[in-house]
Amino acid sequence: MKINVLFSPLFADELYFTGRTSVVIDVLRASSTIVTALTNGAREIIPVGTVEFAVKVSGGMFGGQTLLGGERNTKKIEGFALGNSPLEYTPEVVNNKSIVFFTTNGSKAIVKAKFSTNLYVCSFLNLPSITNKIAGMNQDVVIICSGRANNFSLEDSVCAGRLVAELLKLNENAELTETASAAVSLNKSYGKTISKMLAQTEHGKLLLENGFADDVKYCSKYGTLEAVPAFNSGVIKLL
Amino acid sequence: MKINVLFSPLFADELYFTGRTSVVIDVLRASSTIVTALTNGAREIIPVGTVEFAVKVSGGMFGGQTLLGGERNTKKIEGFALGNSPLEYTPEVVNNKSIVFFTTNGSKAIVKAKFSTNLYVCSFLNLPSITNKIAGMNQDVVIICSGRANNFSLEDSVCAGRLVAELLKLNENAELTETASAAVSLNKSYGKTISKMLAQTEHGKLLLENGFADDVKYCSKYGTLEAVPAFNSGVIKLL
Repeated sequence: MKINVLFSPLFADELYFTGRTSVVIDVLRASSTIVTALTNGAREIIPVGTVEFAVKVSGGMFGGQTLLGGERNTKKIEGFALGNSPLEYTPEVVNNKSIVFFTTNGSKAIVKAKFSTNLYVCSFLNLPSITNKIAGMNQDVVIICSGRANNFSLEDSVCAGRLVAELLKLNENAELTETASAAVSLNKSYGKTISKMLAQTEHGKLLLENGFADDVKYCSKYGTLEAVPAFNSGVIKLL
Repeated sequence: MKINVLFSPLFADELYFTGRTSVVIDVLRASSTIVTALTNGAREIIPVGTVEFAVKVSGGMFGGQTLLGGERNTKKIEGFALGNSPLEYTPEVVNNKSIVFFTTNGSKAIVKAKFSTNLYVCSFLNLPSITNKIAGMNQDVVIICSGRANNFSLEDSVCAGRLVAELLKLNENAELTETASAAVSLNKSYGKTISKMLAQTEHGKLLLENGFADDVKYCSKYGTLEAVPAFNSGVIKLL
């Protein structure tokens, strides 16, 4: 089992993912929101790479069954029912709904990795469940940090490092690429108190400034959800 | 003074560098080779972004005064006088020569950052001199890791982290971006014994397999050269 980490989706092209087992991370907030929405009864999440495509896809679906969700520059998009706050995706709101989902980083990273044979969505919330799933498969895995505007983001890299560290506990023979080792080291330096780390990151600070302190706190919870969201044929559903 | 680090040249476009003070790092081996060649008497280094351009540029220059140097996939390029081993760039070979220089990562990163107002080349060899130069300017600085094939590379990131850490010693009020902090943390984890770190990296291993053990050892020396190579109007010269 070989474990690789990409600190940005820029570090691979779409075809790189063909046949691979991949895990996409966007701690603040797309992957946390996806895990939460599916746990709370959403039927499926349809990640899209552009706002225009979100509108187009949802237009062809049954009214009332579909919600548009996501953000641009941390803010809800005009005409969308939901933003990118996981706390909005309550059972009352999302139960049995299909959610067409666009975000600046996370949904685009998932779309980029769409040719993966297996593609899972991970946040701190469901990290232990993803660890068990990946360890059980005993295949090579690539962990993609969605990052910020295609650049490095500390919170995704630390989360990736935590996932690698947890995988190593279950399979000490796992082979790490240099980037996977670096991620483990970043988790060691920054990952002790997740809430503190998130509040110190550039993205965390921006969310705090925009009134999303509860989101940052929520996204720092570790292992509170058991969902294993899996992408297949264009939609993300629970395994 | 704000310090930023880019873990890959992919994280910025050419115009990003306009007006900035930048430092390019490619420990294995381009920046180590440039520092060495200039220390040993080369008149100037002309970094180029493609092999074709290297041949074109050198064709228009005086014969005997110009050398073609560099590598593709760690190997010397056919028709080039020199490879990318710093040990080839001896005083006897390079004295008073203009060297047209192409490498897979480093020379391309320098060319990408060409709109910088100030652009310096740093390796472990001359890191203390670069530290003093940058600290003395007391301006914002961006440190570019050349990386490997535009991806993350541990050795460049650790070297960047060391540079940030040394700058912090001279200016404790310097403000770090999240990536600069992460680089400092990587230097703390991996930078204690540079030679050991380099030998463990993927690029280091590749060089060892290809018979360049002496290069890896040489590039791990810290502060042995005082050169401050500066890029201006297309050429790199000593300040």
